[in-house]
Amino acid sequence: MEFKNWFKEKVNIIDEYLGQVIEAKENPQKKIYEAMNYSLLSGGKRLRPVFFLGAYELFKDDIKEALPFACSMEMIHTYSLIHDDLPAMDNDDYRRGKLSNHKKFGEATAILAGDGLLNKAYEIGLEAAIKLRSINAIKALKTIADSSGTEGMIGGQVIDMDCEVKISSIEELKHMYALKTGAIIKSSVTAGAILAGANEEEIRTLGTYAQKIGLAFQIEDDILDITSTQEKLGKAIGSDAANNKITYLTFKSIDEAKKDIEKFTEEAIESLSIFGDRAIYLIELAKYLTRREK
Amino acid sequence: MEFKNWFKEKVNIIDEYLGQVIEAKENPQKKIYEAMNYSLLSGGKRLRPVFFLGAYELFKDDIKEALPFACSMEMIHTYSLIHDDLPAMDNDDYRRGKLSNHKKFGEATAILAGDGLLNKAYEIGLEAAIKLRSINAIKALKTIADSSGTEGMIGGQVIDMDCEVKISSIEELKHMYALKTGAIIKSSVTAGAILAGANEEEIRTLGTYAQKIGLAFQIEDDILDITSTQEKLGKAIGSDAANNKITYLTFKSIDEAKKDIEKFTEEAIESLSIFGDRAIYLIELAKYLTRREK
Repeated sequence: MEFKNWFKEKVNIIDEYLGQVIEAKENPQKKIYEAMNYSLLSGGKRLRPVFFLGAYELFKDDIKEALPFACSMEMIHTYSLIHDDLPAMDNDDYRRGKLSNHKKFGEATAILAGDGLLNKAYEIGLEAAIKLRSINAIKALKTIADSSGTEGMIGGQVIDMDCEVKISSIEELKHMYALKTGAIIKSSVTAGAILAGANEEEIRTLGTYAQKIGLAFQIEDDILDITSTQEKLGKAIGSDAANNKITYLTFKSIDEAKKDIEKFTEEAIESLSIFGDRAIYLIELAKYLTRREK
Repeated sequence: MEFKNWFKEKVNIIDEYLGQVIEAKENPQKKIYEAMNYSLLSGGKRLRPVFFLGAYELFKDDIKEALPFACSMEMIHTYSLIHDDLPAMDNDDYRRGKLSNHKKFGEATAILAGDGLLNKAYEIGLEAAIKLRSINAIKALKTIADSSGTEGMIGGQVIDMDCEVKISSIEELKHMYALKTGAIIKSSVTAGAILAGANEEEIRTLGTYAQKIGLAFQIEDDILDITSTQEKLGKAIGSDAANNKITYLTFKSIDEAKKDIEKFTEEAIESLSIFGDRAIYLIELAKYLTRREK
């Protein structure tokens, strides 16, 4: 199958699952389901669940079993975007070309919608783990949980928000990126492999791949914030500069940054060599990420 | 052992565990550990983990195994208090006699500290489940997760916050209470029993006990908001009236409410009869809750 079709097939399966996971029940708290679905179903690229399924497929075919775990990654990602957009955080009015959650539903509901999505990720993961009765399922969930917490995504956001933590070198910036966006990209790949029963070397190798890709992806984001248009990006451009944010481009020129993206992408692809041809979709996925709309 | 000593012993074990669960690492995001510990270690009554251990002990003695699960309940409870206190929610400046989390650390950190505590609850629960390798551990975690989500605690907070949802009867109020505070009190008890391997009838019976106790506890809270002092309660009194909140006392007099507390407590205790003398501490716990500081 061509990569494009493979990717499209995965996104369709993921979108179908996500479309029904939060049932809009007719009860007094129904507003929360609307708010959760508003952000969850607003056209995300579904990269994290696709990474998860891509890694899982290296070892096992029955992706139906993996789907709840893969989609829990998207729910955690979505909750983090809702909370990051809040006035007390980045104060962003738009996300993916639509009003951000708190602009649409109010701050209280947005906070609770984020909480609800985070909690729901574990509800569906645990439900799937009970069905599978497999220790790998619990280990996969634990990997997801660790990457989402204060030693992962939340920790990165803390550093990013904290004016007292001054990022003064590219190494410090890379550390922050490794937590804020890198950790759950990495766990998408490694948890997929863990669920499928990969061995330690395979998991470690896939972790290296994902770390490199995650960094390339973040640098790309920094470049897009300068070179893209609001229409293409779905959110305000130039916001990093306006907020005096330290980004990769604080330390490197756009050309240098683009070369680094290529370098990290190549290194990521090289690390997959132990899998041979089986890794074709993960290789194409790495290339796809560096060809995003400029 | 006398109930008082039993209770104190449990609280000590819980406090010891909670005191070390969030390690204040020397890293760039260390502020988050301080903020999480500030609320987690601010003298809560530890009722939810005590309920958990009390139910667990009906069936098994090795409460060390149960401790991470019991304490995950306290972390979920604490995160909910941090988020409920936020300006966009109840806008409370004090909690347990201290500044609320956002007054002390700022809103962004308070939101992230809440997120961090919720996530950490699952991190420690999953870690313990991996060690135990028991399906009951996963089922207990799933019970905890369900009670914390949009069909439980979060759902209750949504109803409580949503001005468009008009609570116009005592039944509607009871439904909101059953979600907002009742659900995780119930799951503290039932998840403790599930982890210990209780059968379905035992779990159902304990669920009834916890539901009645949860309601009595909430009515007591409504009374205390009127009759207590700020010093004793550790937070502003009269806030329900000031915020025009619908409470149990909107529908009943204080005397009627006190009688209902007694009635629900008695019913809760009666439901434990199948356990005979084994349930002595859960019975005493029910009585203890209705004897709180007026």
